[in-house]
Amino acid sequence: MKIDAIITGGTLLTMNPAYEVLEDCAILIKSGVIADIVPLKKAQKIGADKIIDAEDCLITPGFVNTHSHLPMTYLRGLADDLPLQRWLGEYIWPMEAKLANESFVYDASVHGAAEMIKNGITMTADMYFHSDETAKALKKAGMRALLSRVIINPKGDNIAEEIGFLDEMRELHGEDGLISWAIAPHAIYTCSGKIFEACFDYAKESGTILHTHLSETKKERDDCLDIQGLSPLFYLRKLGFEKAKCIFAHGVWLSDEEIELLKDTSSTVSICTQSNLKLTSGIAPLKALTEKGANFAFGTDGVASNNDLDILSEASFTSQLHKTINDDPQFMPARETLARLTIHGAKALGKEDIMGSIEIGKRADLLLINHRNLQSANMYDPYSHLIYAIGKEQISHVMVEGKLLLEEGRLTTLNEDSIIDRAEEYKTMILREIKDVDKK
Amino acid sequence: MKIDAIITGGTLLTMNPAYEVLEDCAILIKSGVIADIVPLKKAQKIGADKIIDAEDCLITPGFVNTHSHLPMTYLRGLADDLPLQRWLGEYIWPMEAKLANESFVYDASVHGAAEMIKNGITMTADMYFHSDETAKALKKAGMRALLSRVIINPKGDNIAEEIGFLDEMRELHGEDGLISWAIAPHAIYTCSGKIFEACFDYAKESGTILHTHLSETKKERDDCLDIQGLSPLFYLRKLGFEKAKCIFAHGVWLSDEEIELLKDTSSTVSICTQSNLKLTSGIAPLKALTEKGANFAFGTDGVASNNDLDILSEASFTSQLHKTINDDPQFMPARETLARLTIHGAKALGKEDIMGSIEIGKRADLLLINHRNLQSANMYDPYSHLIYAIGKEQISHVMVEGKLLLEEGRLTTLNEDSIIDRAEEYKTMILREIKDVDKK
Repeated sequence: MKIDAIITGGTLLTMNPAYEVLEDCAILIKSGVIADIVPLKKAQKIGADKIIDAEDCLITPGFVNTHSHLPMTYLRGLADDLPLQRWLGEYIWPMEAKLANESFVYDASVHGAAEMIKNGITMTADMYFHSDETAKALKKAGMRALLSRVIINPKGDNIAEEIGFLDEMRELHGEDGLISWAIAPHAIYTCSGKIFEACFDYAKESGTILHTHLSETKKERDDCLDIQGLSPLFYLRKLGFEKAKCIFAHGVWLSDEEIELLKDTSSTVSICTQSNLKLTSGIAPLKALTEKGANFAFGTDGVASNNDLDILSEASFTSQLHKTINDDPQFMPARETLARLTIHGAKALGKEDIMGSIEIGKRADLLLINHRNLQSANMYDPYSHLIYAIGKEQISHVMVEGKLLLEEGRLTTLNEDSIIDRAEEYKTMILREIKDVDKK
Repeated sequence: MKIDAIITGGTLLTMNPAYEVLEDCAILIKSGVIADIVPLKKAQKIGADKIIDAEDCLITPGFVNTHSHLPMTYLRGLADDLPLQRWLGEYIWPMEAKLANESFVYDASVHGAAEMIKNGITMTADMYFHSDETAKALKKAGMRALLSRVIINPKGDNIAEEIGFLDEMRELHGEDGLISWAIAPHAIYTCSGKIFEACFDYAKESGTILHTHLSETKKERDDCLDIQGLSPLFYLRKLGFEKAKCIFAHGVWLSDEEIELLKDTSSTVSICTQSNLKLTSGIAPLKALTEKGANFAFGTDGVASNNDLDILSEASFTSQLHKTINDDPQFMPARETLARLTIHGAKALGKEDIMGSIEIGKRADLLLINHRNLQSANMYDPYSHLIYAIGKEQISHVMVEGKLLLEEGRLTTLNEDSIIDRAEEYKTMILREIKDVDKK
């Protein structure tokens, strides 16, 4: 068997069901798949197009981002120190209305993809306008993604146009490739009940994931109680969410009773800690989610409310914060935190059969993280060092479908310098357009 | 006037009282001092030994770490997922008793210094055993520090030996150099009241700063109420803290009444957010500290409870966390967060006359941070990007007293490779010594 690539040595955190940690091994990759994992000595006799030396590295599954808005890249830092509703209504939406045309979305998506790759994100679930442009950008980048075109429709009842768009995208990009598609009603305060009903029906009939924002703020929850007489997830239950596999971004204000609804479903809450803190949305109920066995994983949200895509820090900080919030120093220990970043993320996006752990037969989506560094020398426990000490700048290689998107810290499919130059051009243009943005 | 170095261009965040942000300037450095700040054109005619091009860089004062335990470097990752008292009593203290001899402390301090420099920390307030060894390490590194030998003395009343040690250190290292000295009774649960009284008297008579842990946990506070009939800072007030300038590390459980005592004093609370979260100590009352005008700044604590020395992330997370804790999206905005990292930290360590801001006449302790990067391209507001987007890996130059300790990302006074090799040697030795450490 001719091998495309062999990764030799290192410490392999498989994140398989037994959480095996393997050393002195080699990973054989063929046609984008992990073909075998063999003892290092055996690998020396196998020929391959490419040999990747993982000495001094941790090898992990790629990180999964379960909630992003890639094309917001150029809006980073334009509106800080605001709560969600003002941030959205007074700054972000007006700016997007002025700026977010196809070429803006394409360029910003390329930039966002480059940044995600450098942060070890191999797959993201993204929601924005002109997501056909985001698809082009991600194809160029080589990343895996679950994309969706956001639906804002407070009065309508028909999603024929949205379904048509998804059919068109599937035709164009294929269903077995790196890009898959979700249906994305934005939130209960931007889409009518009829729209949600139609989306849940469509999601069920077509086997499409539904991606939405849920219970991000107290106001959203209180308004739903006032208007619908139900808390948000009970309202969505009335509209049919249990028919579908959903990604619910944020879930900050979910009650114990609402979380009970998630138990035994295939739906996931995407935890976006830094965004929630920065916009004063609150702190998500991870203890209740954990106790009731509801799936949750991590999301970065958009860079305008984070303001980076450093999902490793997101995970680390979430783990530390919730030890104190729940008065339990053993809450979300390092290994579980890594599981949320990988296999639970894969499960959220319906991809746990093909990624999220390093196992024979799964797609080769993985990272090499160099731990020979001042901040992670003398490593006693690889999970601890990865979550509590290692920084994302130590990610040296990122592989998706057996192809290196980052090698020795350099992007291979995208040109970092050109991307940064392009961002600077947009800065000039944006400042001209947005004269009245409140800058402190 | 012959100039030692000129830093040209970039965006200068002076952190002076007017918070001036300067561009198209040059900073002239002579004999470790900022001799002048002139327009760039004028600088072109001035000769200098070294020209440092700060194009695409932010120039900021060096970051000040107001609470660290440098020599804990090799203990990183040995004991996670534990609350403070168990972590200290069952793991850290027994390990230190076995391991922390002079050469261990020296080597670990060299490693810690290297790591601090890479994280942009130009001065730290450190407390540990064998701090004469730490002093040697920091002299080699070229960092500025306020060092102290920790006092653990639950029954005694005499600090003659401690005073003798400080006199010896001042004699050896000089008082006007980079290394200064504090008196450091560890905490109210490890030192008797008489020891604290003696330390406060000594601090007042000699003009020495006192560095201690205070009100880190609820248990500490509750025990103090039980035993002394007073909350911790009222207890220390009875023992004389108001005579002295103090650094109180943590302050998590300080009440409003205790914080009132800090108002109009020269004492500071050192906020160690990640350590507090990881050890489930709690969340410090930053709102009350702010409202009552008590000084506070940031600290990393030791790497065994963090587990890195990334003080920029520490500041960023603290800012985001407290927006939500205090339900105020404008709480601790970016510029104030940087002020806490710099000028407030300098004030905490009694050095605000010579550092903490970039002003003519102050010592040249400063950083160059390269913002030409995917995560910080198109920078609208430099403070926002620095605190919410930029990572410490973007710190390219670190200067202390006009001397570069980090240049183009490489350490100049310390050998990174040798330091990492040395850490690996200690790993082997430590694992042999500590067979019964609970590893998950």
